[in-house]
Amino acid sequence: MNDPFLEKHIHDIPDFPKPGIVFKDISPLLASTEARIKMTESLVQKFKKDNINVVVGIESRGFLFGMLMANALNAKFVMVRKPGKLPGELIDQEYELEYGTDTIEIQQNAIQSNDNVLIHDDVLATGGTAAAAHSLISKLGAEIAGYSFMIELDFLKGREKLPASKTHSVLHF
Amino acid sequence: MNDPFLEKHIHDIPDFPKPGIVFKDISPLLASTEARIKMTESLVQKFKKDNINVVVGIESRGFLFGMLMANALNAKFVMVRKPGKLPGELIDQEYELEYGTDTIEIQQNAIQSNDNVLIHDDVLATGGTAAAAHSLISKLGAEIAGYSFMIELDFLKGREKLPASKTHSVLHF
Repeated sequence: MNDPFLEKHIHDIPDFPKPGIVFKDISPLLASTEARIKMTESLVQKFKKDNINVVVGIESRGFLFGMLMANALNAKFVMVRKPGKLPGELIDQEYELEYGTDTIEIQQNAIQSNDNVLIHDDVLATGGTAAAAHSLISKLGAEIAGYSFMIELDFLKGREKLPASKTHSVLHF
Repeated sequence: MNDPFLEKHIHDIPDFPKPGIVFKDISPLLASTEARIKMTESLVQKFKKDNINVVVGIESRGFLFGMLMANALNAKFVMVRKPGKLPGELIDQEYELEYGTDTIEIQQNAIQSNDNVLIHDDVLATGGTAAAAHSLISKLGAEIAGYSFMIELDFLKGREKLPASKTHSVLHF
């Protein structure tokens, strides 16, 4: 069951970005210090005993709570970004969209083979981006301790597309 | 003078994104809990007595420390985003790039006319984005208490392009 306090800070916006789609707007949650603190605690709670030393946040809404989670776990924060944004030596991973493909990138030296990584994004929808982040981090030889999402859209069954690892979402819709 | 501890967490990457440009890579800073905490403290320090109640973070690297700053100031966090990303009633602001123009958006109900806003982005370069954020927030009738940047590229003189308000950058290059 969803935490009622956190749930009331997520607003439904009908017909965005397309007719028939109900968008989950996290803006009210970002506007409340109390909600931000509670959300951060809920995002890391299930992973506190897992010796996470890296939190990976996926651009760009994964940057919002990713930094707070890294502080809460005393871990490194590492960005996964869209192509062309990160400097230095990179590795990338392509993944499929409804129409076409997209690519994400990470800095090669950002993660070591003995790291234990928690992947974070705001929403688990179809799972394509998070699965691509898993592949990217696996290429660098690190362990993936799990995935932590603010919101999971259960009806899209994204969880089934993720390479197996502990998967936690704070709110389910 | 730059804080040596924070400065050593910013790495120069030559010839990115174009030949002749030296990119300031913040990844080493994001990887250190101690550096993240010290940077957050440095970003808010000059504004602690200014009764800030809203921190605006500019997509996407302004999301990284914007949330930490909002926690430190017990303020709302509000996103300024690229076009097409935010749901609901929006207002937008166009601004000039070296070639062409770009646009940023904010939710109309995110900021009220009695709010006192701190604008945050990672880097002050030519100042175009931050100046556009100032215009955007001014349209909503709010006060702008100032700008807080992690890094200011002094030689680009972006500061001169910003509508007047208290302007603080933690590191100068």
